[in-house]
Amino acid sequence: MPSIKTVVATLATTTAIGLSSAVVAQEYTIGVSIPAATHGWTGGVNYHAEEAKERLEALYPDIEITISTAGTPGEQANDLEDLVSLRNIDALVVLPFESGPLTDPVRRVKESGVFVTVVDRGLTEEGIEDLYVAGNNHELGRVSGEYIRERLDGEGDIVVLRGIPTVIDDERVEGFQEAIEGSDVNILDMQHANWNRDDGFEVMQDYLSRFDNIDAVWAQDDDIALGVIEAVRQADREDELFIVGGAGMKDIIKRVMEGDELVPVDVLYPPAMIATAMDLTVQHFVSNGPVLGKYILGSPLITEENAEQYYFPDSPF
Amino acid sequence: MPSIKTVVATLATTTAIGLSSAVVAQEYTIGVSIPAATHGWTGGVNYHAEEAKERLEALYPDIEITISTAGTPGEQANDLEDLVSLRNIDALVVLPFESGPLTDPVRRVKESGVFVTVVDRGLTEEGIEDLYVAGNNHELGRVSGEYIRERLDGEGDIVVLRGIPTVIDDERVEGFQEAIEGSDVNILDMQHANWNRDDGFEVMQDYLSRFDNIDAVWAQDDDIALGVIEAVRQADREDELFIVGGAGMKDIIKRVMEGDELVPVDVLYPPAMIATAMDLTVQHFVSNGPVLGKYILGSPLITEENAEQYYFPDSPF
Repeated sequence: MPSIKTVVATLATTTAIGLSSAVVAQEYTIGVSIPAATHGWTGGVNYHAEEAKERLEALYPDIEITISTAGTPGEQANDLEDLVSLRNIDALVVLPFESGPLTDPVRRVKESGVFVTVVDRGLTEEGIEDLYVAGNNHELGRVSGEYIRERLDGEGDIVVLRGIPTVIDDERVEGFQEAIEGSDVNILDMQHANWNRDDGFEVMQDYLSRFDNIDAVWAQDDDIALGVIEAVRQADREDELFIVGGAGMKDIIKRVMEGDELVPVDVLYPPAMIATAMDLTVQHFVSNGPVLGKYILGSPLITEENAEQYYFPDSPF
Repeated sequence: MPSIKTVVATLATTTAIGLSSAVVAQEYTIGVSIPAATHGWTGGVNYHAEEAKERLEALYPDIEITISTAGTPGEQANDLEDLVSLRNIDALVVLPFESGPLTDPVRRVKESGVFVTVVDRGLTEEGIEDLYVAGNNHELGRVSGEYIRERLDGEGDIVVLRGIPTVIDDERVEGFQEAIEGSDVNILDMQHANWNRDDGFEVMQDYLSRFDNIDAVWAQDDDIALGVIEAVRQADREDELFIVGGAGMKDIIKRVMEGDELVPVDVLYPPAMIATAMDLTVQHFVSNGPVLGKYILGSPLITEENAEQYYFPDSPF
């Protein structure tokens, strides 16, 4: 059922491609629903969403962006209802707190005629959203494995710290294992450290007490990496090994920029993807190019040479 | 090796995120290399590239976009060299004439430090480009098959016209066959009509002479569909069947908008994807969101209800 919003959107597309210049004062409201900054990565999401809002509103005077942050899936579901009924949004950009509980609420938003962009965590049902923007977990694992394999000349003993048991973690580990397959890189042990600094510290302490020689650590995540760094420092074994995290946390990027030998690289899984999703959602209204589909961001290796472009010193993450 | 361009790009990113406002007059040149408008779809590519250039240059005074069109792969390879050596581009958006002959020339552009976006036709080697933007051929086939299956209530005799024998054509046909699998939709014959109007006319004439009853035609492509429409009209069998094309040609979209019973729907594979690629390439310089990765556009069903948003009456295609 084409709503007034659809008509407005159509008019706007028409305007943007130069068919009519009489109708330019149309206004679009874009709602952005994200988890509150409960840990490092979502802190980065909040920072980058605010940055993108400021930039996009300055660029497009007829676009208004409203950001809601939620502490629980239930709160986020309420936010979505409010964005539709109170803010009358034309488009929604949502990074779901959890996939399951948010699938029905997002579907209801879509059914009301709103353009929907889902970020990072997919819904449990395909085909609801117009646009999906996410990182590439398999590539994150593969790139990490390739680096470690190459750095060790294909031979050495390593330990792995896994995330929270999820599809995301499985995909990363699968990519990593494919990358070291056929080499003499030997995984001494793999334990879950749940993308958490304290768990990273504890798991690494255990590894350090059990293994006399460790050539490299795949921490998979920068929060885990911080815990690993602390454990290695307390054990005074910094010279023995190097650590590969993942995400693009500013403390880790800074170490990479400065040529830290303990943390020589990082692998990108950027909270700034929320900004990419907001850019594309705005384009749905202003560009002659189509926007709907799947956008899977790359997970490049961050080295001393390219680290600066991934460093956001004002971000909390 | 970080070139001056990389430094400029880094400065710009810094500027965009508000760290320095002293350096804003930086200028970026983006080269766009596309095939000349030799047939309908590339005509649309040319139109949408020009539209996007106009829109983006108006929006960003510090960005210059230069479009080169080539009549042969060799000419396009020369264009790429010129864009780097004469225009000193910071980024390249390229829709390769053919994958094979353009892979080395695009690699050389990348090696010179330029950000590279490849559109529609992938290179023969992975990992050269920073960003890949393309349509979804499997989905185009699947969506077409689902529509025909549903329209025929799961039962009927159809004919299929294939494109030029390529991976693109294979993926489309695979998606189509998966969608009708398990139904009583029966494919009477499949012949190549090479995404060409005249071939579409000839193949369809042959089908019409051989089969007394045809319930639907999957033409896969709007150029083919035009030939099919002509053959059906000459045989005076318009009331017997309906035709599903693909791409989003304006003549076909217009029929869909007007409720033409012979061509009730179309499936999107838009030449406007060049504009999407140009938008994203610009974002690499101005956004806090990351851009590199793979962007696979959706192939939605175009119906009487939503056709207007895909209708560009000023485009040649």
